[in-house]
Amino acid sequence: MEDSDSGFFATQTIGIIGLGLIGGSYAKGLRRIGAGRIIAIDTDAAALRQAKADGVIDEGYTAGCRALGMADMLIFCTDTHAMIQFVRDNTLFFKSDVLLTDVAGIKGDTARIIRSLLTDTMDFVPCHPMAGREGRGYGMAAAEIFYGANYIIVPCRENKKQHIHTITSMARKLGCAHVVSVTPEEHDRFIAYTSSLPHVLATALVNSEAMNPAVKFFVAGSFRDGTRVADINAPLWTQLFLANKENLLYEIDRFTTSLQEFTSLLETEDRPGMTHFLQQAAKRRRELVHETNSR
Amino acid sequence: MEDSDSGFFATQTIGIIGLGLIGGSYAKGLRRIGAGRIIAIDTDAAALRQAKADGVIDEGYTAGCRALGMADMLIFCTDTHAMIQFVRDNTLFFKSDVLLTDVAGIKGDTARIIRSLLTDTMDFVPCHPMAGREGRGYGMAAAEIFYGANYIIVPCRENKKQHIHTITSMARKLGCAHVVSVTPEEHDRFIAYTSSLPHVLATALVNSEAMNPAVKFFVAGSFRDGTRVADINAPLWTQLFLANKENLLYEIDRFTTSLQEFTSLLETEDRPGMTHFLQQAAKRRRELVHETNSR
Repeated sequence: MEDSDSGFFATQTIGIIGLGLIGGSYAKGLRRIGAGRIIAIDTDAAALRQAKADGVIDEGYTAGCRALGMADMLIFCTDTHAMIQFVRDNTLFFKSDVLLTDVAGIKGDTARIIRSLLTDTMDFVPCHPMAGREGRGYGMAAAEIFYGANYIIVPCRENKKQHIHTITSMARKLGCAHVVSVTPEEHDRFIAYTSSLPHVLATALVNSEAMNPAVKFFVAGSFRDGTRVADINAPLWTQLFLANKENLLYEIDRFTTSLQEFTSLLETEDRPGMTHFLQQAAKRRRELVHETNSR
Repeated sequence: MEDSDSGFFATQTIGIIGLGLIGGSYAKGLRRIGAGRIIAIDTDAAALRQAKADGVIDEGYTAGCRALGMADMLIFCTDTHAMIQFVRDNTLFFKSDVLLTDVAGIKGDTARIIRSLLTDTMDFVPCHPMAGREGRGYGMAAAEIFYGANYIIVPCRENKKQHIHTITSMARKLGCAHVVSVTPEEHDRFIAYTSSLPHVLATALVNSEAMNPAVKFFVAGSFRDGTRVADINAPLWTQLFLANKENLLYEIDRFTTSLQEFTSLLETEDRPGMTHFLQQAAKRRRELVHETNSR
């Protein structure tokens, strides 16, 4: 697969497997940065029709087919199981030097499995764009989810340097602020804290017994923001949480320790201790925003 | 104090005590809706100068003074202790039929104390606009914090009907979506869940041992949103949390029960149970947004 920073996206064909919220956002973003040809595969024919009507994709297919042979790059925006199954069923259709990449939130040993299904000239570069939003489906897709986001690459030993460069270039063009590389183990450990845990807290907060119709007018920004991602894709996240069980249990435990520290300060009415706890939080939050140049 | 929906805000003088984030937002919002004269009192002379330079206030004072006698309405945007002290020290300066109101996040028996410091012709209508944002100080003030927000009135038996009407009218003009009345007890109970608890969770999340420089690139929208309010005014919130201790401890306990329910589902790998838990959260979050017509 050829790559030159200026010409690649204008001349190559990109295939998106799974045209939901994330896949649709790639399609919209890639269209915006001038991608030449975009095809999509999804079982949802209505989403494909809509995307084609929107001018976001050039062609849509409801199953793997010969059209895959046109794709220089395939971006898997499905869950991990569906990706593995799709690769297993369709490798024969793939272009001989195709570049595969994905967006899966948990890495585990997926790369090893995919690798074993490919020929030596094909390449799979596992990725995880730290971008998303509430809701699900193509209707919620937006090119803006990438703006200022962090794009994580989880490279394998076999990856061609040029492919890492292609992905890096794409991420930057889509508007991502940082592109960083880590091992699969680091990825899954960090993600349990920065992504899974906030989703767990948001859902646990709205699922509290305290939630009832009377409280709705008492909701302000803190509750809205703290529960935004509670509007969750339940089957997808069930799979993500279970796939990263040990790391997530560990992070729930560390969060609970932190919450208990606050609770003790409240119970004992330790005013200086509580102010210190809150000041540390404010400092950390400000540093985080400052360091990542994001919201 | 006179009130007519059309003329009041153009002809009367409004005094804002405490020109920080909330006070400054009132000043900006009231200026935008055409308030005639706005004065402010704050110990921070720089904030007063800035607000005057911005055209947001007409005059600023660093302490209570005769100028208070011009104000038809005084909006206290300080903490509760400072409000009580200010009223105690300055009642003699107040206009004889002044309308006082506040924004305190916890009500307790503040209204009774303020009432005892006023003459019979003065009136105090306790309020709590469910509006705010991260950070602190006049520099962070914005008229937009009221847009679509809920404005809570916690009326007392002694309140003049006409004053409730004035506050309601002001809230609507500022852009609030709903104005609702509750008892002080209801207020403090609900607020522990919808406001205090999300702040506690946000601060506990960034204060987890998991937080370190390496994780910053793994931060996406869920973590940013879930920790936005961790950038907290530490002394103010220490006071708010301690003033509502029993309600908050109760809500932390109910949240913990909800979190433990999720943790058990994860430990036992109860896939259908977890999907159900997440689906319930998604449904509740969507209903909440739908019902309150807000973000």
